[in-house]
Amino acid sequence: MVEGSGTTGLAHMSDTETLDLEAIHALAGTALQAQGFSSAQAEAIARNVTAAERDGCLSHGLFRIPFYVAAASNEDCDPSAVPRLHTAKGAVVQVDAGHGFCPLALEVGLEALADTARTLGIALLAIRRVYNIASLWPEVEWLAERGLVGFACTTSVAYVAPAGGTKPVFGTNPMAFGFPRTDGPPYVFDQASSVSARGEIQLHLREGKPLPAGWAIDAAGQATTDPEAALAGAQLPFGGYKGASLAMMVELLAGPLIGELSSRESQAHDVNNTGAPFGGEFLLAIDPEHCAAPGQKADHGARAERLFADVLSQEGTRLPSARRFAARERHQSEGAAVSASLLETLRGYC
Amino acid sequence: MVEGSGTTGLAHMSDTETLDLEAIHALAGTALQAQGFSSAQAEAIARNVTAAERDGCLSHGLFRIPFYVAAASNEDCDPSAVPRLHTAKGAVVQVDAGHGFCPLALEVGLEALADTARTLGIALLAIRRVYNIASLWPEVEWLAERGLVGFACTTSVAYVAPAGGTKPVFGTNPMAFGFPRTDGPPYVFDQASSVSARGEIQLHLREGKPLPAGWAIDAAGQATTDPEAALAGAQLPFGGYKGASLAMMVELLAGPLIGELSSRESQAHDVNNTGAPFGGEFLLAIDPEHCAAPGQKADHGARAERLFADVLSQEGTRLPSARRFAARERHQSEGAAVSASLLETLRGYC
Repeated sequence: MVEGSGTTGLAHMSDTETLDLEAIHALAGTALQAQGFSSAQAEAIARNVTAAERDGCLSHGLFRIPFYVAAASNEDCDPSAVPRLHTAKGAVVQVDAGHGFCPLALEVGLEALADTARTLGIALLAIRRVYNIASLWPEVEWLAERGLVGFACTTSVAYVAPAGGTKPVFGTNPMAFGFPRTDGPPYVFDQASSVSARGEIQLHLREGKPLPAGWAIDAAGQATTDPEAALAGAQLPFGGYKGASLAMMVELLAGPLIGELSSRESQAHDVNNTGAPFGGEFLLAIDPEHCAAPGQKADHGARAERLFADVLSQEGTRLPSARRFAARERHQSEGAAVSASLLETLRGYC
Repeated sequence: MVEGSGTTGLAHMSDTETLDLEAIHALAGTALQAQGFSSAQAEAIARNVTAAERDGCLSHGLFRIPFYVAAASNEDCDPSAVPRLHTAKGAVVQVDAGHGFCPLALEVGLEALADTARTLGIALLAIRRVYNIASLWPEVEWLAERGLVGFACTTSVAYVAPAGGTKPVFGTNPMAFGFPRTDGPPYVFDQASSVSARGEIQLHLREGKPLPAGWAIDAAGQATTDPEAALAGAQLPFGGYKGASLAMMVELLAGPLIGELSSRESQAHDVNNTGAPFGGEFLLAIDPEHCAAPGQKADHGARAERLFADVLSQEGTRLPSARRFAARERHQSEGAAVSASLLETLRGYC
C-alpha cells in the first residue's frame, strides 16, 4: 500500500496547511471522540494515522479519518469496543476486536505476540472481528524494531479478479514484512497483491487521468484504462497468476484459517457500502535468536547487512521503505502539510 | 517453479520411452547409488523425482539426476550425509543436512515440524548446510495432506537483479504454499520470485527461440530477448519491485535468519560452477485447529471451499496445481514418457 501510493497524489490537490505531528495527533483523536469513538479507540487510531503522516503516507494519514467515521455507521461496528486478548498454551495468540478497529486490537495483541515469539521462537497472532482500514507496515516495523522478524496480511473488499477470470474475488490483500537491522531503521515492505491500490484508481478518477495499462479490466472483462470502468470492473493482481496466488494465500491466512470472512464475504457484510473491510488480520513474529544453529550465536544481522549492501551497491536501487524513512526525518522536524479541505472536514467533526 | 515450467518443453525434444513410476523410481535410485550416493540419499531423491514425473513436472523429474551427480562433484558435498535433527523446547525445529541433499533432510525434519505444529499451533523448520535442487511443492503438499498449512522457501544462485538494478543478487527464490482441502488434493502453489525459471531460459536457448519480453536484461542492463545475453545478464523479478521485495524476503528467511548463505554467497561457494544452490530452506507449518476462535470448532475447510468456489465458478480460472493433479491421474495408470537421450545418460551412470 505504501510504495507508489503513499507519497503521491494527495498533497498537491488543494491548498495545504502545515501541522506539527502533535497537532495532527490531537486533531485525529478529538475528531474521532467527537464522532462517538471511545478515547482508547480514538487514541490508537490517532497514533496510527499520525505515524502515517510522519512518514509521508498521506493515503493512510488524516485522509483516513472520514473512512473510520463512515465505517462506524455500520450497525455492527463498535467504535468503543474493548479488544479481548486470548493466549493459549501454545504459540497462537488471539485478539477478538469486538467489531472495533485494528489499531487498538494491535496494541492489545502485539506485546503478547512478541513475548510468545521470544519464548518459543515463532508465534502467530490472529485478530478477529475487526474493521481494518490501516496500512500494515506499523505492526511489522514495531516487531522488527524489537529484533523480531514480522509478517502481516489482511483481506479487504473484493476488487481483484483471479488469474484467468473477470469478476472480483480477492481484496487488494496487502502483505507486509519486516526484518531487523543492526543499524538504522528495519527492512520493511507493505504491498498490495493487486497492481495498484484502490485509492490510486480513485485518485486517477478524481484527476481525470487515464490509468496505466495493465491495472484493471471493465465489467465485461476487457482491459481498460478508464478509472470509472475499472472501479465498476475488477483490478488485476500484480505479476499475473503469481500475484493471484499470493492474493489467495492472503485470503486463506487472514480469512478461513482464522475463522474469518473472505473479501467477498466482507463486501456482502458491508451493507452501507462504506468500503471498510471487516474480518481478520494474520500476523507472525519470529525470534532470530531461536533460529541460529545449535550452539552458535545468531548472526542474522551481519549476514543481512551483506545482502542489503549487495543491493544498495548498485546504482538505481533502494530498499522498500527508504522514502518513508526520509519523509519521517523531515516531518518530525518540520511538521507535515495537510490538505486544507481535509482539515475543514476534520474540524467539522469536532 | 512448477507452473509454466513443469509440463512444457522437455518431452518433445527427442524420442521418448514410457516407463511406469516404479521403473522411474528404480532407475533414479540405482543411478545415484552407482554414482556414490548412499542408499538413504539416493532413495529420498528417487522418491522426489518420481513424484515430479508422476505429476508431469519434467524439469524436476529424472531430468534432475545429472544435476545431483554434478553437485556431488563439489568437494564439500556429501552424497552419503546423514541429516541430523535438532528439536529445541520451543517451536523451532532444525535439520543439519551435513552437505547432503534436501529430500532426505526433509524426510528427517517434516514429521517433527508437523508434530510441533500440532502441539503448539505453529512451527518453523530450518534446514541448513543443504544442496537443494528440488521443487518445493512436495513438502507443502505433504503438510497440507496432513491437515496443516505449509509454507516453504529457499534461496538459489544469484541470477535475478533487484528492482532498479542491473546485476544479479537474488536467486530465483521460489516460495511454496499449501492449504488443506476437505475434498480432493490440497491448494498448492510453488512459484519463483523471478518472471521465469532459469531452466525456461536454457530451454529457449537450446531451441533457438527468443525470450518473451520482460524476462531478462543483458550484462549492460538493457532489456533483451536473446537467451544467451539473458544468461550472461540478469533475470527480472516478477511484477517489478513487488516481486523483488518477495525475493528479498525469501533471501532473508532462508539465508540470514537461519544463519545460512545468500544466493550470491551460494554462487561463490559453487567453485565447480555446477549451478547447484547450497544453503538453507525455511519452512512453516500451521495447525488450523489451534487458530479457531476460543471455544469454537475450526471451520477453515468449509470457509476455504467457499473461496475456491468463488474462483472456480468463473470461466477461465483454475487453481494453481490443477494441471499437476490431472497429470498425476494419467501417469499413475499409464506411466510417464521419458526422453530417450535422458534415459541413455541415466543408464550410463549405472
